[in-house]
Amino acid sequence: MEIFKKISDMQAWSRDQRKAGKRIGLVPTMGYLHEGHLSLVRKAKADCDAVIVSIFVNPLQFGVGEDYEEYPRDLTRDCGLLEKEGVEAVFAPSVREMYPAGYSTTVEVSGDITARLCGASRPGHFRGVTTVVSKLFNICLPDIAYFGQKDAQQAMVLEKMVRELNFPLKIVRCPIVREADGLALSSRNVYLNEEERKSALVLSRSLALAREMIEKGETGVASVRGAMIEFIQSTPHTDIDYVEILNGEDLSDLAEIKGKVLIALAVRVGRTRLIDNLLLEV
Amino acid sequence: MEIFKKISDMQAWSRDQRKAGKRIGLVPTMGYLHEGHLSLVRKAKADCDAVIVSIFVNPLQFGVGEDYEEYPRDLTRDCGLLEKEGVEAVFAPSVREMYPAGYSTTVEVSGDITARLCGASRPGHFRGVTTVVSKLFNICLPDIAYFGQKDAQQAMVLEKMVRELNFPLKIVRCPIVREADGLALSSRNVYLNEEERKSALVLSRSLALAREMIEKGETGVASVRGAMIEFIQSTPHTDIDYVEILNGEDLSDLAEIKGKVLIALAVRVGRTRLIDNLLLEV
Repeated sequence: MEIFKKISDMQAWSRDQRKAGKRIGLVPTMGYLHEGHLSLVRKAKADCDAVIVSIFVNPLQFGVGEDYEEYPRDLTRDCGLLEKEGVEAVFAPSVREMYPAGYSTTVEVSGDITARLCGASRPGHFRGVTTVVSKLFNICLPDIAYFGQKDAQQAMVLEKMVRELNFPLKIVRCPIVREADGLALSSRNVYLNEEERKSALVLSRSLALAREMIEKGETGVASVRGAMIEFIQSTPHTDIDYVEILNGEDLSDLAEIKGKVLIALAVRVGRTRLIDNLLLEV
Repeated sequence: MEIFKKISDMQAWSRDQRKAGKRIGLVPTMGYLHEGHLSLVRKAKADCDAVIVSIFVNPLQFGVGEDYEEYPRDLTRDCGLLEKEGVEAVFAPSVREMYPAGYSTTVEVSGDITARLCGASRPGHFRGVTTVVSKLFNICLPDIAYFGQKDAQQAMVLEKMVRELNFPLKIVRCPIVREADGLALSSRNVYLNEEERKSALVLSRSLALAREMIEKGETGVASVRGAMIEFIQSTPHTDIDYVEILNGEDLSDLAEIKGKVLIALAVRVGRTRLIDNLLLEV
């Protein structure tokens, strides 16, 4: 497995793969890999001839007061896991390599799709994501890039960016991977203490509650949302960032629960902000 | 010569060229071609195996009250000229093809490099340029893209964008092409009536005056700039937009005329806004 730190080396390798007619798969990550990431890697390995995993904690997508500094990192362990999966290349650049002095170019998707949900709580977050992912696309030259449904809004924003900037590649979304008890895998789960870990189940459980209500015929956005909020508020150590039920295509408002529906929430459990979501076809 | 109107057709053709090991050259234009454009095309033909000329009057780079509607267009004549040059493909999409309903993705370079000169007079102009050129790069997949030194600031902005977003290509700048009397070629020259055409010489002549002063040893920014302004103001039908002497690398201020220096000006001649510049190594 090749490990590249320099953009020019990574790009040269990717060009060579392209020239050799290989199909390149890219899995962009911030490292500290878990089974969610590995499910993307396995899908990429199944689809492609050469799989690149990028590992870069991107400062541009963290806001002031967020957890950029303490975000967990372990490149050695990550590379060990990826070697076992048979990944062909890891791209792990430094911040200075990605954003040299004087850097000032950004890529932005505007509208509801970035203004709502995590975009409202984390101003500038998606601009950071679309900028770094544009760079990764140009450096790694993938035919297919893999993203998790766990970050549903991120996947939607990136799909719009790829479509509108005409990147010559396809995005594949992979399903959320969960612990046995339902908690969605996240590198941030390591922040949780024992009590918070219990309370964190409130995210997946409130989504299960919403699904149940909808399956029983409930179509009112306010009543499902209200039930979720009430359920979360009854759980200790939790503080709701948002609970939303929106159009699953473009995050516009819904008059009723019908069609492609995204139920998404962000909840602070102790000091850890967790997200989860459910995409339904009603 | 192939003429493509659809992004998917153009991109498929470019992919095939790449797969066949061809080196692709791209000359992005807004059409109504003159010898300036054709000099870029000839350079591309000399360097590359497959040359694409894009023809698209990009609404995103025109401001309110600017000449988007009346900008001259003649696709038939343009294609005739390009066929004679042996160009392999023309990409001439519609506005709807490039910016479908709901379009909201932009690419932006910020800082002095876009805030000054034409960026100050035309807010949003460079965001329009970097956005459309990013799209053209992703659609046409060039190894080399050609831009004219006539739009010096545009070339600098695009070079910074390519470097910072890591586009897998090289930008080549080609020299300004001028009429026998010195007027820089521009599609907008057709707007000039006979008297204005004479007054328009003030742009190249004020640059010649600046060069002469600098060659005689003048190093003061204010005195060279002052002489240019005085000269222009003495010419009928002219209205100065800007006259600037700046660092030719990043458009920062200069304490004195030394190193890589860009002398750039924009002057309204009648109702037509014209630009010209001189890049010097002092």
